[in-house]
Amino acid sequence: MSLVVSGSIGIDAVELPGGERRSDLLGGSCAYFAAAASFHCPVRIVAVAGEDFPEHHRKTLSHFRIDLDGLEIRKGKTFRWGGRYSGNLDQRETLFTELNLLGEAPARIPEAYKDSQYVFLANGPPALQLATLNHFPQRRLTVADTMDLWIRTARADLLKLLGKVDGLVLNYDEAELLTGKRNAVAAARHILEHGPRFVVVKKGEHGAILVHKEGIAALPAYPAEKVVDPTGAGDTFAGGMMGHLAAEGGRLHDPASFSSVRRAMAHGTVMASFTIEAFSLDRLKRLTKEELDARYHEFAEMLRME
Amino acid sequence: MSLVVSGSIGIDAVELPGGERRSDLLGGSCAYFAAAASFHCPVRIVAVAGEDFPEHHRKTLSHFRIDLDGLEIRKGKTFRWGGRYSGNLDQRETLFTELNLLGEAPARIPEAYKDSQYVFLANGPPALQLATLNHFPQRRLTVADTMDLWIRTARADLLKLLGKVDGLVLNYDEAELLTGKRNAVAAARHILEHGPRFVVVKKGEHGAILVHKEGIAALPAYPAEKVVDPTGAGDTFAGGMMGHLAAEGGRLHDPASFSSVRRAMAHGTVMASFTIEAFSLDRLKRLTKEELDARYHEFAEMLRME
Repeated sequence: MSLVVSGSIGIDAVELPGGERRSDLLGGSCAYFAAAASFHCPVRIVAVAGEDFPEHHRKTLSHFRIDLDGLEIRKGKTFRWGGRYSGNLDQRETLFTELNLLGEAPARIPEAYKDSQYVFLANGPPALQLATLNHFPQRRLTVADTMDLWIRTARADLLKLLGKVDGLVLNYDEAELLTGKRNAVAAARHILEHGPRFVVVKKGEHGAILVHKEGIAALPAYPAEKVVDPTGAGDTFAGGMMGHLAAEGGRLHDPASFSSVRRAMAHGTVMASFTIEAFSLDRLKRLTKEELDARYHEFAEMLRME
Repeated sequence: MSLVVSGSIGIDAVELPGGERRSDLLGGSCAYFAAAASFHCPVRIVAVAGEDFPEHHRKTLSHFRIDLDGLEIRKGKTFRWGGRYSGNLDQRETLFTELNLLGEAPARIPEAYKDSQYVFLANGPPALQLATLNHFPQRRLTVADTMDLWIRTARADLLKLLGKVDGLVLNYDEAELLTGKRNAVAAARHILEHGPRFVVVKKGEHGAILVHKEGIAALPAYPAEKVVDPTGAGDTFAGGMMGHLAAEGGRLHDPASFSSVRRAMAHGTVMASFTIEAFSLDRLKRLTKEELDARYHEFAEMLRME
């Protein structure tokens, strides 16, 4: 059940529809994913940050069951991202992206991580995701995330990556961009032809769709009334999902069966519903396992039909 | 379990994104609703059509368990509507609306309908919906639908209506328009303050949200890959839901409890998933109870978490 995630650690600035602004927030796909997954199992991270990375952000990460040996601190500046939300917090505009160290050599992967069985490749250049994969020869389940930038600029590498992973997680509009198909199920089914066993199409407040070689499922989002900041919802969804798959996988002959992934998605959904209740990792920092379990059972109950 | 629906019977013309066109289709909220509900219980309709209403459309309606005594045929022309779909069939533009008889005196309500216990007021002028209500003094459960037109032009009547119904069914953007709130749960909760016990917010391919005085639930749509024509999806969703509530209500002390409405919504969801597989009522006409039950069980299974 050794879970590793490679991706970004960053410092975010967020502007809300009402005009409220927050800066110097701990962010990045790797941070969000790992914090979420750590509720289900210990997590190893592979990421790079600069000497400017604040000590209190490191402290926040160490608050979770995250192995920080793979967080490489290097001379230079940490990745920074700023975004502005509008509408029902469902539209996001990127105000700036400073790649900084993220644009340089990838993070060193600790020798001790080589036996990782569960691997999540957070959003990044597909060529780097492919190279990262090779460091985990004992991998049992590998899932990748991607984004519009790579679909547009690195399609060939991305298609190659699809031949090497068990699952792909991406947004609805990205699935459409990748396949040219405007129906989520049709788009995901098309992606399966490139190799993965399953595709999870994330739809934000509208939930997610799973298209697996063994079946199709749709799940709603947890019906949230209070949304403060949706940043990290997708990454914590993936973290809750992978964390659950890794935690359960040891007991299972096949950790990525249709029914396993479907249930794991429900855990991801519930995790994301907490993330959006506050900025950055603020809500997950004070989230208890009891609260998490209670909402999961409420969610399961909400969907129980017979 | 006597269910009555008042609304429109019309003749539709539909244009699909690929350019395909169909005209002279049987349509109207009442037709769609009644056909769907009739899979669960007999349905009485209150609607008006003109002398131009084709005999084969009447035959289609009589194919279902629909009491046509309340379908008044009057001198004049039947309501006609034409629309064009674009994108992922999720955008609809109205090309023309010919109210014809729908703009004149409402349909006569047969004396024999007075004992109806379950009443659905399909989309129409709220003042007319209010007047219709008074014809059913024995009503046990009343649900209304509405649309942006009435929210804009007859808000006062609509708010009055909300004080007289148990439930309201409307689209996401309509809920936003009515309340000024951009979150589906917040908008629905606001509507509850005007009187109804529950609000169902329809989100098309993204499912529906129930905000009930006793709880909140979200359901996905059935993940459909093949969508031919989404016309009538919302009305057959409501028909499947109300038909199920009416069929089960006799056994229940409270036919509109949170858990009853939630389960009934799942029946509505499954019904809508068939409707969109063909034009007009074509799919429901050949739908068997076995197919319906099988998909309902598949849907319930898809959502079962423990």
